[in-house]
Amino acid sequence: MAEGSSEQHKKPKSDIEISQAATMRPILDVAKDKLGIEAQDLIPYGHYKAKVSLDYIDSLKDKPDGKLILVTAITPTPAGEGKTTTTVGLGDALNRIGKKAIMCLREPSLGPCFGMKGGAAGGGYAQVVPMEDINLHFTGDFHAIGAANNLLAAMIDNHIYWGNKLDIDARRVTWRRGIDMNDRALRSIVTSLGGVTNGFPREAGFDIVVASEVMAIFCLAKDRADLQRRLGQIQVGQTRDKDAVTADQISAAGAMAALLKDALAPNLVQTLENNPAFIHGGPFANIAHGCNSVIATKAALKLADYVVTEAGFGADLGAEKFFDIKCRKAASSPIAWVIVATIRALKMHGGVAKDDLKKENLEALEKGFANLEKHIENVRKFHVPVVVAVNRFSLDTDDEIALLKRLCGTASTECVMSDHWALGGAGAEELAESVVKTIDTKPSDFAPLYPDDMSLWDKTRTIAQEIYGAEDITAGKPVRDKFAELEKAGFGKLPICVAKTQYSFTTNPDAKGVPLGHTIPVREVRLSAGAEFVVVICGDIMTMPGLPRVPAANNIEMDAEGRITGLF
Amino acid sequence: MAEGSSEQHKKPKSDIEISQAATMRPILDVAKDKLGIEAQDLIPYGHYKAKVSLDYIDSLKDKPDGKLILVTAITPTPAGEGKTTTTVGLGDALNRIGKKAIMCLREPSLGPCFGMKGGAAGGGYAQVVPMEDINLHFTGDFHAIGAANNLLAAMIDNHIYWGNKLDIDARRVTWRRGIDMNDRALRSIVTSLGGVTNGFPREAGFDIVVASEVMAIFCLAKDRADLQRRLGQIQVGQTRDKDAVTADQISAAGAMAALLKDALAPNLVQTLENNPAFIHGGPFANIAHGCNSVIATKAALKLADYVVTEAGFGADLGAEKFFDIKCRKAASSPIAWVIVATIRALKMHGGVAKDDLKKENLEALEKGFANLEKHIENVRKFHVPVVVAVNRFSLDTDDEIALLKRLCGTASTECVMSDHWALGGAGAEELAESVVKTIDTKPSDFAPLYPDDMSLWDKTRTIAQEIYGAEDITAGKPVRDKFAELEKAGFGKLPICVAKTQYSFTTNPDAKGVPLGHTIPVREVRLSAGAEFVVVICGDIMTMPGLPRVPAANNIEMDAEGRITGLF
Repeated sequence: MAEGSSEQHKKPKSDIEISQAATMRPILDVAKDKLGIEAQDLIPYGHYKAKVSLDYIDSLKDKPDGKLILVTAITPTPAGEGKTTTTVGLGDALNRIGKKAIMCLREPSLGPCFGMKGGAAGGGYAQVVPMEDINLHFTGDFHAIGAANNLLAAMIDNHIYWGNKLDIDARRVTWRRGIDMNDRALRSIVTSLGGVTNGFPREAGFDIVVASEVMAIFCLAKDRADLQRRLGQIQVGQTRDKDAVTADQISAAGAMAALLKDALAPNLVQTLENNPAFIHGGPFANIAHGCNSVIATKAALKLADYVVTEAGFGADLGAEKFFDIKCRKAASSPIAWVIVATIRALKMHGGVAKDDLKKENLEALEKGFANLEKHIENVRKFHVPVVVAVNRFSLDTDDEIALLKRLCGTASTECVMSDHWALGGAGAEELAESVVKTIDTKPSDFAPLYPDDMSLWDKTRTIAQEIYGAEDITAGKPVRDKFAELEKAGFGKLPICVAKTQYSFTTNPDAKGVPLGHTIPVREVRLSAGAEFVVVICGDIMTMPGLPRVPAANNIEMDAEGRITGLF
Repeated sequence: MAEGSSEQHKKPKSDIEISQAATMRPILDVAKDKLGIEAQDLIPYGHYKAKVSLDYIDSLKDKPDGKLILVTAITPTPAGEGKTTTTVGLGDALNRIGKKAIMCLREPSLGPCFGMKGGAAGGGYAQVVPMEDINLHFTGDFHAIGAANNLLAAMIDNHIYWGNKLDIDARRVTWRRGIDMNDRALRSIVTSLGGVTNGFPREAGFDIVVASEVMAIFCLAKDRADLQRRLGQIQVGQTRDKDAVTADQISAAGAMAALLKDALAPNLVQTLENNPAFIHGGPFANIAHGCNSVIATKAALKLADYVVTEAGFGADLGAEKFFDIKCRKAASSPIAWVIVATIRALKMHGGVAKDDLKKENLEALEKGFANLEKHIENVRKFHVPVVVAVNRFSLDTDDEIALLKRLCGTASTECVMSDHWALGGAGAEELAESVVKTIDTKPSDFAPLYPDDMSLWDKTRTIAQEIYGAEDITAGKPVRDKFAELEKAGFGKLPICVAKTQYSFTTNPDAKGVPLGHTIPVREVRLSAGAEFVVVICGDIMTMPGLPRVPAANNIEMDAEGRITGLF
């Protein structure tokens, strides 16, 4: 898209302006022309979004799988890296060089939309559209997940209210309510105040919906039956005798599944270049497992030769969980791995303040390269070949680019500059060629980081040592007891889902680069018996974000014709 | 539909079985053939639901209006009356007798779906479809309303957290959070516990989304600009100096409007007989104003010659609010009014217990008729002609029918038996003919019950005396002070929205028939400055329902093919 690069000389357009000026094709046409899906196998949501029916997806099951490319990034900084943007740019570029490719992205949450992070539909000329729709409600999946989550919560308190036949200990209800909003006031609350008719007061709280176990189940379920089975397995708390109480015992799983029935079908949209993209489930790889749905990924692998997907935040969080949780279960393993970096962000890892990023700084770049190098080293532990994609910014200097290429060379890794933000798919063709060549020439022999039968403690320590470069993990007695209790109850074989700040290999968000010799404090352990993993919360990370001093919501407006401004 | 009546001899099908066996037409075809709306003016949600674009609706503004028929009912009893069913049956019947008719219904809430009331998509052979979709999520409108409501709540607490420039008094925040769920545990809570990072602890609570002011604004807004204006006017609480704080001062209205952008367009579906129906906004006429959206009603009046709409619960609640709130503002006034009764329910009002309803009981019917008569008398106060529709049950005896017709005759009111539950539109043709004849022969000269410039106290008393048959209203000093405060602040001209039990003319749900000499205690007054009415809460009514001992959710299941059972 030539206008992309010429825009760089004028006042650059905002993401929403570019998105609103896009020439979208009807999604039924995109589905038919690019994927061969007929209208009756699609459930349209407006003219530019559709769900692909689960029956149709099921009909593809005997087709061979395409090749799965995972895009992740270095440790994120306020300078921005552009993981989703690169995923979209690479997907468009693969289509440009004649490959049949689909992208699999994660759905944005309303929380960051009104907070500070901005949208999650790519940027510049590498976006998925319609951008406002995708960022606001989309096809309602997260609302459905929130409703299923909260129906279970209401049914638990209702069970206690009407006699408590199961003898649930109100102090030991672990199931939290959920809302797709950044609302710190709901983190820790007391419910059922105001007298007899309102129930038995107890401590409770809300998580953001994306961090909920229902979201993880939704993303990891193979099909409807698996969804309902997993929902029923959810443990909501304990009886006075400390026996686990499940969603099945509360008779909630059927109604929860009914609420998720439509949501479970993956959402199809298009890029600015009219290539197909699934967007389904799973952001927030800091506090959730953070991958898009297994159903979408598996469907995409049946429909295309190349599937480009993303895992959230840095590779230490998103990619580790992608490998150790999603791939371990889903049987679809990545063939190649792309790590996104920017020269700006590497300079920040090298100690440069945000305001000084415009100046060339080779010393800082070299120092910050250590962060990228550690992520490269990490991913090699999963035995998947890797390519570094440098998301180009206009102020990157030739010397900086040359240095970064040389540094990657010393790490035996190909490093490709990519200019998809300004140029769309055309700017990422070299990256696409490089990824295809890597897949054709370097074998992928994926293996998870740790075996199922390692203890939960050792699994956590393995991640901390191998991936975060920590010396060890620490935990108080209640956490150690919880680990022991889970193993005794038969959950020792589950993988670990770490909840941790995304801004550092440590639990201190300010520790950039590659800190060494640190320990990872485990604050809390939560069983996700339905998602089939154990959440290990490290450091001060919150499962319910707050809004910043000046929320993005302050600047969002709608005019009388329904045009939205201020949304990114 | 002849099979309907034959079904009465076999095991009758459940509503969901009838609905799942329906032969639906693609909604784009229904819109084109029945209403002349082209595909580009529709936003499809699947193949059988669509929103009609606001731009298209705006293009109709110079067309003449059709005739508006309001369906309400006697005071509801556990015997069931069938207001939505009659609305659908009458709409289908009008189409059968050659009239161009649309129905305007209200969207179901998830709360009763999982609680006890069941769906809100009609019943038997007078249903709107697809029934499961309509009852579960539909097009996501209520989720959007909940999100807008809760974004404002989060922004209020966030404002206080980050320095509280407006000096909001945390004790005087009146804005409540919302959730589309029956969850008594959330009625009264304390938020922001757990230390400094979670904000300032305060008392708070959740209402069911349908009872929220955002729902009322959504239903009453004329267009997008009016929506945003009203959202900005919302009063969320007071400063330490007792000045009002609005959503505009919190900078929330734009983002809230953006969240409601898509939802604001009305939803089009079809009946079992493939006639068009709008379903948009507004159930719960006990705790909300309980009417479907102004935008949907106005669009329907442009698109058809007859528009059949409903107002919730008994005419004392739904119809009174329809007249005094919706019609007062919306300029579309009803031409005829249909009151739905059943012989079973009238016998209950006459003192018969639910288990004894199968037996003929002329004495009880005559006694219970007083309830119907009072509703007839009430509606005449609005100067609109009325027809009584008796929703037929198979055990109604000939003598009971003859008696009811005679009693209506003494009240100078036409009384028509209608069998749409068993026969679809064919069963309601006589009703349709009667309504058309009434419209053609009896003038409607609609006027609201009270003028704008009556005091808020007197408006409330007028409703209580004229409609509920009460002697007077009572209230403690805080309530009287609140009335005075609102008048002083310039809100004295707003209409009243009573929140009260739907089961009686009194505030005691067990007082059936037509109690006399009672007083109505006003418990609380809430200003809805954006909805532009004053909510007057009478008696023990709750703005957040609870689930029953055995919630409907317990019996809902989904099979591996996605078929839902147990939903009604």
